[in-house]
Amino acid sequence: MTVFFSYESNLMNKKETILTGDRPTGKLHVGHYIGSLKNRVQLQKTCNQFVMIADVQALTDNFEDPQKVHDSVFQVMCDYLAVGIDPAQTTIFIQSMIPAIPELTLYYMNLVTVARLSRNPTVKAEIKQKGMEESLPVGFFTYPINQAADITAFKATLVPVGEDQLPMIEQTNEIVRSFNRIYKKEVLVEAKGLLPVLGKRLVGIDGQAKMSKSLNNAIYLSDSLDELSKKVRSMYTDPNHLRVEDPGKVEGNPVFDYLDLFATDTHKVQELKDHYARGGLGDMVVKKYLLEVLEAFISPIRERRKLYEHDRAQVMQILLEGTKRAALVAQQTLAEVKEAMHLNYQK
Amino acid sequence: MTVFFSYESNLMNKKETILTGDRPTGKLHVGHYIGSLKNRVQLQKTCNQFVMIADVQALTDNFEDPQKVHDSVFQVMCDYLAVGIDPAQTTIFIQSMIPAIPELTLYYMNLVTVARLSRNPTVKAEIKQKGMEESLPVGFFTYPINQAADITAFKATLVPVGEDQLPMIEQTNEIVRSFNRIYKKEVLVEAKGLLPVLGKRLVGIDGQAKMSKSLNNAIYLSDSLDELSKKVRSMYTDPNHLRVEDPGKVEGNPVFDYLDLFATDTHKVQELKDHYARGGLGDMVVKKYLLEVLEAFISPIRERRKLYEHDRAQVMQILLEGTKRAALVAQQTLAEVKEAMHLNYQK
Repeated sequence: MTVFFSYESNLMNKKETILTGDRPTGKLHVGHYIGSLKNRVQLQKTCNQFVMIADVQALTDNFEDPQKVHDSVFQVMCDYLAVGIDPAQTTIFIQSMIPAIPELTLYYMNLVTVARLSRNPTVKAEIKQKGMEESLPVGFFTYPINQAADITAFKATLVPVGEDQLPMIEQTNEIVRSFNRIYKKEVLVEAKGLLPVLGKRLVGIDGQAKMSKSLNNAIYLSDSLDELSKKVRSMYTDPNHLRVEDPGKVEGNPVFDYLDLFATDTHKVQELKDHYARGGLGDMVVKKYLLEVLEAFISPIRERRKLYEHDRAQVMQILLEGTKRAALVAQQTLAEVKEAMHLNYQK
Repeated sequence: MTVFFSYESNLMNKKETILTGDRPTGKLHVGHYIGSLKNRVQLQKTCNQFVMIADVQALTDNFEDPQKVHDSVFQVMCDYLAVGIDPAQTTIFIQSMIPAIPELTLYYMNLVTVARLSRNPTVKAEIKQKGMEESLPVGFFTYPINQAADITAFKATLVPVGEDQLPMIEQTNEIVRSFNRIYKKEVLVEAKGLLPVLGKRLVGIDGQAKMSKSLNNAIYLSDSLDELSKKVRSMYTDPNHLRVEDPGKVEGNPVFDYLDLFATDTHKVQELKDHYARGGLGDMVVKKYLLEVLEAFISPIRERRKLYEHDRAQVMQILLEGTKRAALVAQQTLAEVKEAMHLNYQK
């Protein structure tokens, strides 16, 4: 048996606690929906789910633009509510308002060596990607420890991750085992990485592997019909499909990838694929259909989102209530941690 | 004008805020008294003084023995009160009970690079001394940032340090300047290192440069007359002073160093030095006088200390009240820091 669960196998188990979340660096897009939001809406029914808006983590590489991070917290919360993450079932909270997390982080820093941290492949890869070898901030270098604090503060047993993030779970569990061993008490709980069953990721509208704000290739959950229409029209398709009569490639064609993920009429999608493959179907026809499909998906989200966006006070109140609830859970873990470390002076 | 103050020049300035403290890893000894406690008793009259019992910092290299750290907090507090650090004038507090410090630490970690931290000479030297190159814990590596959080949390303007700790002040001020520049607000305050006027350090009873628990060469403020007597008798003197008639060396002779620091009758000390130097004065005679001198110094401290030790509840209450006061000050600084970072969601 593998140590990693599939979403399905966990749906029957109500005893799992999930920690997941997003870095607030902008509005969320349909790639987030496919990759995580959709699953959260399902998982909240059967799991004790915590969703963290990771403003502190976002600041680690956005510290020169704190206003962006601040504003994105509200935007991300609107996205959550609009897609159906239910604050009655999911505890949504702001990371910076959980003081137990930095305290745990600091204690865990004694349990990890600099050498071990340097070997973390996620850190290595991200450093390489972001080109920060020369001027690597300590906060970025140590962030696997910070993540271990996020996870263990809620005694999360499941953490949705991509393959590339499994070393982060391993680092967390090393800390858990070290802590429990050194302080001779089973205070912390190991977590398992929750890998998506379908590894299929939504590509960008330019065909790039990743949809992201910085690549300017994302369709947002908040996009207007006009924006959506423009983006679909500009979408990358098969570059060799020059004339309508030509046979086109379906495989690796983002337009069909999107249809696979968002269209409900799979029969129609199959027909379009066949027609496109044998020739005689123009990109514009397929795109027109995709626009319909995406608009049918996005419009109810967009409408709900507008309502939330216009009721900032209430949305923030919901978020602050979740944060209060999360802070209590984390505070309880911290109290147990400090008790085990003999950092208890009030008795 | 130098950036470093002498104790004297500051005695006239009531606007300074001092942060100082000790790592609770055992009872305090007369070396601590000469090196810092004595000055604190003076400085509290004219400065806003915070004294931190740094249990979290002590854990960075004592994390396998948390009970020692726990117990030492109370012992150190008894030492403080016994030597005359006055909780009405000095805010004495426990580091682990100030949650603002870890939060500040985490924010500051974004402002310091790994490369910069690796160049810190204090860290380098301590690593070399403790032989931790191979298995350096992250908590030890990053501790200059933690110290910057300690200092800035109280907006300390003066930090008593030895020469070797000046890089720590420099690191703190770099963080202060970076923070204020990046977040465009003069929130944090630079600190100055407060170097002792007399660089004279109390050597160990074995003549080693440093008095310390681990070298087993310390005289404690809590030593009984019996322990004191044994230690003085075993003290290192001039190894070439074999017969009473021989001339002895005064310079570098710990017995005379101690007399210089503790004897009030300087005339008598000078007479003994002269006699010793020309020969005819035995070590035992000088040591007998030193024992008298040290007992006169220690006995009132020892007596007061006993009273405090037997009233644990009240001593801890005083300490927890100071901690509450300190927590409020640090919380205020943190609120300003978070405001500047736009981590404010409650308005």
